[in-house]
Amino acid sequence: MCQLMGMSANVPTDAIFSFTGLVQRGGGTDIHQDGWGIVFYRGKGIQTFKDPEPSVASDIASLVSSHPIRSETVISHIRQANVGGIGLENTHPFCRELWGRNWTFAHNGQLDAERFVTLPLGQHRPIGTTDSEHAFCWLLKRIADQCSADSKDEIVWDVIHHCAKTLHVMGVSNFLLSDGRFLVAHCSNRLNHITRRAPFGKATLKDVEMRVDFGTETTPKDIVTVIATEPLTTDEEWQAMDAQELLVFSKGEIISRYHTALTPESPTNHGKVIF
Amino acid sequence: MCQLMGMSANVPTDAIFSFTGLVQRGGGTDIHQDGWGIVFYRGKGIQTFKDPEPSVASDIASLVSSHPIRSETVISHIRQANVGGIGLENTHPFCRELWGRNWTFAHNGQLDAERFVTLPLGQHRPIGTTDSEHAFCWLLKRIADQCSADSKDEIVWDVIHHCAKTLHVMGVSNFLLSDGRFLVAHCSNRLNHITRRAPFGKATLKDVEMRVDFGTETTPKDIVTVIATEPLTTDEEWQAMDAQELLVFSKGEIISRYHTALTPESPTNHGKVIF
Repeated sequence: MCQLMGMSANVPTDAIFSFTGLVQRGGGTDIHQDGWGIVFYRGKGIQTFKDPEPSVASDIASLVSSHPIRSETVISHIRQANVGGIGLENTHPFCRELWGRNWTFAHNGQLDAERFVTLPLGQHRPIGTTDSEHAFCWLLKRIADQCSADSKDEIVWDVIHHCAKTLHVMGVSNFLLSDGRFLVAHCSNRLNHITRRAPFGKATLKDVEMRVDFGTETTPKDIVTVIATEPLTTDEEWQAMDAQELLVFSKGEIISRYHTALTPESPTNHGKVIF
Repeated sequence: MCQLMGMSANVPTDAIFSFTGLVQRGGGTDIHQDGWGIVFYRGKGIQTFKDPEPSVASDIASLVSSHPIRSETVISHIRQANVGGIGLENTHPFCRELWGRNWTFAHNGQLDAERFVTLPLGQHRPIGTTDSEHAFCWLLKRIADQCSADSKDEIVWDVIHHCAKTLHVMGVSNFLLSDGRFLVAHCSNRLNHITRRAPFGKATLKDVEMRVDFGTETTPKDIVTVIATEPLTTDEEWQAMDAQELLVFSKGEIISRYHTALTPESPTNHGKVIF
């Protein structure tokens, strides 16, 4: 299995605090030592760092932990290999271009080996051998088949939600997905999030001795959401996502929520209301 | 304009020496300070570092200069912006997936603004606004249209060579292109290369005080070719490529050569002979 970390913010924000906690789990406080990666969206471009080494011992991870890269959308992943050997080509997040946008995907879980290979592929093909990259390429095919660059975002989220339901049936599929404008988080069984906004408090990392006072690092208008497989801090109230819940974030806020377990009539079971 | 650096080797080799020289030209000894990038192929995966900052002042470039990443194929670029603003999305090298392989492209030159936009695009679309990324996406369309994953490499090189001729007519188009198995270098007006093999000697960088004795760093079987816009060392014999010459490298050796200025009957004007 693996661990995910994502960030959505309304101002370019560095992810040093959260990433510092996460990398400890890559061979330090936990066993996810088969590689790690992080993608920062900056404008339409992305800045990517990946390493098949354990994150806790990676010089590149040390640089990312000490070098502030400000971004509105971040996706990170530390890996414990199950499907696919250890190697850069199997290291998340995976990136592809569609409609002139960078799409990024990271997955925690495992899909049924006989079933995921039947997911049909289009123009995007896996480079490595993970179930995750195959699922991502299939997901992009579904988006490309059913939407266009001009489609309303809600239509795209609907397609992603349908795909998430399919993947959930095939196994465990917690994932983060972004096109740089929104960040989708889907929970099969384990994903947490927290939104920090004024008045900002202090927080202490769970995995390493580090404490930050967000009040001194932010302005009152800042809104920053962090998503993680397991809460990264000990003294904040993280929200556990439900199984089969899908959240869409933009600029630090939840802008849409899907919940397969709810009835279609449920007031929160749709993709079009900002709350 | 910009500067290119590429490496092809028969054993995974670090590019620290060459990269250390190149980064000086990104705001130090030269004016290419509008961003830089480097792609290392490792197996089927790639490790990418990019920064819109001047390379000479970049913490990330410092890490790459001091952290040995061993690779058989490397493409690097330092940018002086002409078409397209300064930003990550316009920072070379550009990467796309085709046939389950990572393709990487970096360009030095400038294409006629009215003509490059007429190059038709297929499944790959530019994310930024450079002539270079547009040309790369068009090139991939031509390869995808005229070849398949099973095509012989020579057929793919023929297509790339035809594309290179078209780009040369549209302006200056020195470029490096790789799918991780071969490295293509095309010269419009300025590209040099050197192949280092046993017996290895010493070399001194042109742009910064650094000297290396390759004899202590290599085995007798190693073959390493470096390609650069301008020679990176002062005491080695670099080969200047001709205008409209296209070389294909693999494992440090030239495995094919195209030369548009030669007649079709010329013994070196083909893509099929190893020399």
